[in-house]
Amino acid sequence: MRILLTNDDGIYAPGLKALRKELLELGSVTVVAPATEQSAAGHSVTLLTPLLVNEVFEDDGKTFIGWAVEGRPADCVKLALLELLPDPPDVIISGLNAGSNAGINVLYSGTVAAAIEGAFYRRTAIAVSLEYDQKIYDFPTAAKYSRQVIEQILARNPPQGSLFNVNIPVLERGPVKGVKVLPQNVSPYTEKFDRRVNPRGRTYFWTSPEFTCPDPHPDTDVTALDESYITVTPLQFDLTDHARLEQLKKWEWKVE
Amino acid sequence: MRILLTNDDGIYAPGLKALRKELLELGSVTVVAPATEQSAAGHSVTLLTPLLVNEVFEDDGKTFIGWAVEGRPADCVKLALLELLPDPPDVIISGLNAGSNAGINVLYSGTVAAAIEGAFYRRTAIAVSLEYDQKIYDFPTAAKYSRQVIEQILARNPPQGSLFNVNIPVLERGPVKGVKVLPQNVSPYTEKFDRRVNPRGRTYFWTSPEFTCPDPHPDTDVTALDESYITVTPLQFDLTDHARLEQLKKWEWKVE
Repeated sequence: MRILLTNDDGIYAPGLKALRKELLELGSVTVVAPATEQSAAGHSVTLLTPLLVNEVFEDDGKTFIGWAVEGRPADCVKLALLELLPDPPDVIISGLNAGSNAGINVLYSGTVAAAIEGAFYRRTAIAVSLEYDQKIYDFPTAAKYSRQVIEQILARNPPQGSLFNVNIPVLERGPVKGVKVLPQNVSPYTEKFDRRVNPRGRTYFWTSPEFTCPDPHPDTDVTALDESYITVTPLQFDLTDHARLEQLKKWEWKVE
Repeated sequence: MRILLTNDDGIYAPGLKALRKELLELGSVTVVAPATEQSAAGHSVTLLTPLLVNEVFEDDGKTFIGWAVEGRPADCVKLALLELLPDPPDVIISGLNAGSNAGINVLYSGTVAAAIEGAFYRRTAIAVSLEYDQKIYDFPTAAKYSRQVIEQILARNPPQGSLFNVNIPVLERGPVKGVKVLPQNVSPYTEKFDRRVNPRGRTYFWTSPEFTCPDPHPDTDVTALDESYITVTPLQFDLTDHARLEQLKKWEWKVE
């Protein structure tokens, strides 16, 4: 099995390293990942600057890992499929992200966007993220769980272009309780900015790292992670609100 | 009516200027938009750098337009709602974008992401984009059509948090034929890269501006734009594949 591995934390991120180690048990792994951290890159792509690429090797200087790309996660997947990989991958794995990608954070996530980009190309793609608390990450254990979930998804031979979002709960809180298949939570987060003034008197803001989801819908990825379940959410990329579509078709429209 | 206007082409973009002029006929307009071009920013947000803001005025130096933000389109909407606007807006308009945002390009679009961000905050939001050919844009005419469509949407008093994606077809091909309510096309684009080598021997790629959608699904935003219709697509931001969800729930999952 040929695996393309990418992420949004950058090619040298410990989450990617741990996941690569596990995935090597399943097949050949080629990494095409951003050269630098691209957290919250969403589905951005690079139009205005060139995408420099660089070959990356293991510490021995000989074992080829893949390519670092001076771009976004979605750029990496495009470049991998169109230019860099000699053969198309059987599956695209994105992760293991430092931080969960659940609820509406799925939309901000570069990790998930890379997987969606793979699905655009009709490749099966799986995004994998690890929730954290106090910035403690047990990537080796999370990567082991990730590999098990990935194996079980692929064993079902899903149709090409299938898309999955997997989240591993905080591991320091106790053992994982199991796997739950649930929808993405769509209720809003409470977030804030830190307002400051620079030495030249100009106002600026820092995005605060503190945000909460005060009112999550029950039985969603967000609530199950809180209960120490691994969550699996099948995704799609049609943003059409089909229920409202039929309603709007009945409206009378006029332009002149 | 209080209108928040944003975009992804930057606060000085001619599309925004033309749309602002039309929207001033509907109510008070405050602009909070990126300081620089953010095309294809997707739903990225800024975590690693500060968001500098700057007040922007009309050419007279007195009439306040709004704030330029050194960030992404989604950052602008967050900042506007949480920090900058004295009162919450009745509607958020994003555009008028230079280039259509139809099909899977909806996912790459900073224009649409800004509208989605508004919907996260339970505000009604409308993204508006103008398709082009040969880089010719008739923004004043497109802005007039946009205003008419926006008026008709708001006249129906849609529930707070409603989200719409509006595209104006190429105007140089002939008169607009009318308005069609259609889903987002989800078939893939054909795209390519231009591979080059820099003076230091390092490979880099430019994203090619040429891309085509060879096999669009009939009766979608992409096909109707080709036929010179204005398209309206109601959007939502639940990426869950609900059909597959039920299937996956029946699988037996095991982790250890």
